[in-house]
Order: sequence, then structure tokens, then C-alpha cells
Amino acid sequence: VERPNSDPARERSPGVVDEFTLIERLRLRFEKAAGAGSPPGETWIGDDAAVVALGEEPIVLTTDLVVGGVHVDLALGGPEDAGYKSLMVSLSDLAAMGARPRYALVSMAAPPGTELERIGAGIAEAAAETGCVIVGGDLSGAPVLVVSVAAVGVLEGGPEPPALLRSGAVPGDTLFVTGTLGGAAAGLRRLRGVEGSPDGSAGSAPELEARFLRPRARIVAGEVARRAGASAAVDVSDGLAADVGRVGEASGVGIALDGVPVEPGATLEEALYGGEDYELVVATGAPSQLLAAFEEAGLAAPRPIGTCTARADQRTLAGEVLEPGGWRHSF
Amino acid sequence: VERPNSDPARERSPGVVDEFTLIERLRLRFEKAAGAGSPPGETWIGDDAAVVALGEEPIVLTTDLVVGGVHVDLALGGPEDAGYKSLMVSLSDLAAMGARPRYALVSMAAPPGTELERIGAGIAEAAAETGCVIVGGDLSGAPVLVVSVAAVGVLEGGPEPPALLRSGAVPGDTLFVTGTLGGAAAGLRRLRGVEGSPDGSAGSAPELEARFLRPRARIVAGEVARRAGASAAVDVSDGLAADVGRVGEASGVGIALDGVPVEPGATLEEALYGGEDYELVVATGAPSQLLAAFEEAGLAAPRPIGTCTARADQRTLAGEVLEPGGWRHSF
Repeated sequence: VERPNSDPARERSPGVVDEFTLIERLRLRFEKAAGAGSPPGETWIGDDAAVVALGEEPIVLTTDLVVGGVHVDLALGGPEDAGYKSLMVSLSDLAAMGARPRYALVSMAAPPGTELERIGAGIAEAAAETGCVIVGGDLSGAPVLVVSVAAVGVLEGGPEPPALLRSGAVPGDTLFVTGTLGGAAAGLRRLRGVEGSPDGSAGSAPELEARFLRPRARIVAGEVARRAGASAAVDVSDGLAADVGRVGEASGVGIALDGVPVEPGATLEEALYGGEDYELVVATGAPSQLLAAFEEAGLAAPRPIGTCTARADQRTLAGEVLEPGGWRHSF
Repeated sequence: VERPNSDPARERSPGVVDEFTLIERLRLRFEKAAGAGSPPGETWIGDDAAVVALGEEPIVLTTDLVVGGVHVDLALGGPEDAGYKSLMVSLSDLAAMGARPRYALVSMAAPPGTELERIGAGIAEAAAETGCVIVGGDLSGAPVLVVSVAAVGVLEGGPEPPALLRSGAVPGDTLFVTGTLGGAAAGLRRLRGVEGSPDGSAGSAPELEARFLRPRARIVAGEVARRAGASAAVDVSDGLAADVGRVGEASGVGIALDGVPVEPGATLEEALYGGEDYELVVATGAPSQLLAAFEEAGLAAPRPIGTCTARADQRTLAGEVLEPGGWRHSF
């Protein structure tokens, strides 16, 4: 489990800049280059994906980088797993907006001998499962594997209800999660050969490993939540504590978690900070409508995990302060 | 100037696969995952960019990877140059389709200490010059700099005339190029400190260096060519000989070049094989219409360089066989 910064000393070095500081600086530059911020109905940098108006339906755009040794370790899974996950993590961002994936571009840079065709086979599997069509890409040599996926989605049925932004939650909203958490981190722990769960609980290792190697984007859940009047959503990529904190920050609400559904075989620590589970956290002011919509769609019932509060700086789990955690790069 | 393969022996090694072979294999996999090839009006993998139908206007999608040490050398130019070029090369692909850039996603992976904000400043410059809005991206650590840009363009005015595919040329079409060639390769040669042009011709070094470091996508030229009834287009990224050969191959026509406009200070070799000039090669059955449209738009007159012929395997320059050349990666 990666905590806020693996090397706090480096983070404080002169000239070293934190990922989120850099993103904010770049956002300002790019907004200035555009001559203005995003117009009404559009969302640019700062959410799981961007929403732009092209034609009648809003279009949702997102991109993700997967870097060998940082996000994937080809020694832990097959190249097909790396490919599958590369596409799914981008589609998960679209799911967190309530958008349906339509097209993706896939670029790969890799050292000689990398089995790019097997990575491509994994991408094709994920594309077939989700109905997302790979329409282009680029290939290059490089000293390390980098897979970059850009995905294009649509808000089916037109601009209303709007995309599920991180900023839409209001005090009183109930927070739900679409599934159990910590499985990916526990799967990674097992793949690395670290002995079973510290708390001694059982758990099916292949299932846990699959949660890490073959995450599934919750595409239908995102769309159903959007149509059921949800107010905000985010996918659990960096860890529940970090990701739900982003909803709190963007919406200006506090986060009071009651408890979280921990995947059997995983620890609470892994559920809160492990990340890469790619479940969706959904905020809504109409919880019974959300539950009914999930049931009608044949989806597993989302689990209530807490509420949004009016105390904007609140981040608690069962009344105790919840540390944000989450992985961040520095440059 | 890079020729077909820097290491022919490696290319023949078992397990090593050529870039274009790999692209074809991936194309087949992704098409199978989609359940079918591209429907009428859409173009997926295999051209400068993809055309998809979303809403009323067709949307054009493209992506390019820029890898430190492969495509850019931060020792030769500033980080701003690397950023500027990263965006422009993707927009050049849109230009070669006759599309107008609208939005781009920018992802960067880099080692600690990389001046990502300065790279971002160069991207912002290119975005402001072209009216393309950066709406998202991703950042990651990596042992090498990788900038991945995905760009979204539109065919303004709707689906007719269609995008300028590589496959639209027919025998008898005249081939034009939008500017002089070889400048980028000559600029790279000068930046590397190799003494002036082997043929002794003069040339402004700063201008040549700018052609390499700060290429400009021929966006207006691409749009004007599309509206003036051009049949095909490609941008000169890998080298004229290689790129015009792709039009020949995709269209099933021969290519008979009469001559090429060589940038002052560059060699004919650099003009034919250097690449990275990002001028457009345009094929048209209505050359006077193209010339008139360029004049009306206030653009420099495109230079006629040859014709498309019915002898599909013909690749000649002034009657002599033209070697394809061009850079290709292998894996």
C-alpha cells in the first residue's frame, strides 16, 4: 500500500514539484491559452474526464498513462493483463462521469522484445467486453513500456442529466460505493508473494489477483447512477480516502464515512488506501431512487458508506479522522 | 537522415517485428474486437487520423507519442520546444485529414527533475496559436520523457466534402506540397553541430532550426484543400518518399515525382528522406481549383511535385526509381 509520498524528503527538495501543484499550474496555462475557462456545459481539466460540446450530445474525453514499473509490472501478470488494464482504467474515468465509452486511441512505447501484440490482445479483450472501438494509435521505441489510452465517450440520451462531476455533491447526500474495496491491493500483495492477510482472514487468491490484474470499469453503474439523479461520482483509483476526499474538495462538502465494505482477504488499510479497485463512489440526494435504479438494471446493490456534511473540512471514518493517503507522483 | 532501418540485422532476428507488421496485426485484433470493420463514413486505423460519427459532424481523432531520445532531444532545444512540437505533430495529422483541431488531451511521463511546466508552456503556445483547447491529461513518473497527445478535430461544415484520406487519389491526380522540404532535417543537422550543407548551399540556420524544433501544422491548408475538392492528403512526417508512398499504396496508384522544392540550406536527400517537415502532400484532380482556393485563402501557392499514375508500383523521381526510405521502429 503506497502512502502519501514514498519519499517526503524529496518532496521538500527545491525544484521538486508535486503532481497536483503541477496540474494546477498547467491548468492555468492551458486555460490562458484557450483565452477563457470552460463555457457552461463543458468541463475541462480537473475531473475524471473532460466534457465538451461537439454536435448534439456532449462528448466526454479522458486519457491515462500506464508506465511499466510504475503502474504495471509485467513480471506480476501477463502482457495481456497489462493491456486489458490500460484500457479499463481509462474507461473507468468515463464510467465515473456517467458516460458510455465509444472510441479509444491506444499508443504504446516499448523497448525491443516487448510483446506488444500480446498487450494489444488484452486491449482487444477489454474493448470487446465494453463495446469500445479502438480506432487509432501510435507505436514507438522507448527504454520503458508506456501505454497511453485516450477514450471518447458520450452521455447517452443527450446532455440531461449532465455528467457526474466531482463537484456536484451537497451536504446531506448519501455516499455509496458500487462494490467491495481493497481487493486490488490484496491481490497485488499476494502476487508479490507477501504472506496472506495480516488479519488472518481468508480470501480467494485468484479472485483477488484478478481484481488487481483485470479491473472492470463500472460502466453500466455509472450510467445508471447518472440517470437516477446522482449528484457526483469518482472512481476509486488512488484509494477510497484520497478519491472521496476529491469529491469533498471539489464539492466543498465534508465526508463522514460510517464504514466501508472490505473485500474478503483484504485489510481495512487496503480498502481505504490501496486504490485500483475501480469501483465507483456515488453521491446522491435520492438514495432510494439510486437503489431502485441499480436493482432495475440488474446490478448488485450499491453499499451506503456515509454522508456528505456541511463541515467542508471534515474527513472522518466512524467519527475518527481519516488520513487522505493516496499515491502522488512528484517531478 | 534516418534510412529504412538502422539495424537491418536486428530486423531479421526471430521474434523482432516491424512497426507496420505489428500495426496490421493489431488492426485486425481491434477490428475483430469491434465485431466488424468501420462502417461507411468512418475510417479507423490506417490513416493519419480516425474519422468517427458522433453527432452531426464527423469527428476526427488522432494520437502521437513523443519519446525523449527517440523523437525529441531536450539537449537540442528547450523543453518549450519539445512541448510545442508534441502538440503540433498531432495537429498535423488532423490537418492532413482536412479537419480543424478543437480539443486535445496531453499526458506526460518523465523522470524527476524534468521541467514539465516548461514543456507545458510550449504546449500552451501551440494550443493558443491553433485554437486547440487542452481539456485534460495525465502525469506520471517514468525513467524517460514521454509526451502523448490525443487530439479531436471536426470536419467543419459537416461531412461533405469528406476527410482527406490517403486512399482517395486516382491516376491522373496532380500531387502538390504546401512548402519546401528538408528544412527540419537540415536544422537537426545544424543543431547537432555537423558542418553546413554538404552541397555548399547557404541557408539561415535559425530558420532551419525552427523548422525542426517548432514545426507548424498546416491546418488552414488542409481545410482549404478539402473544400477545394482534393482527393487525398498526407503530412510529411517520416519523409516525403515514405509518406507519398503511403498515398500510392493506400490509393493503389503509382507516384511519378518531377522534382521537389528543397529548403535553402537543405540537401535533396534531406528533402526526400528527412521527414518532420509537416508540410502536406495533397492529391487532386482539380489542380487549378486547388491553386485558386489557396490564393483566395491567402496561403502560399502549393508546389506541384508530380502526378499519380495507373502503374500502381511506380515510385519515381524524374524518371529514376525513388527508394521509399523513412523511419520505422521495430520491437
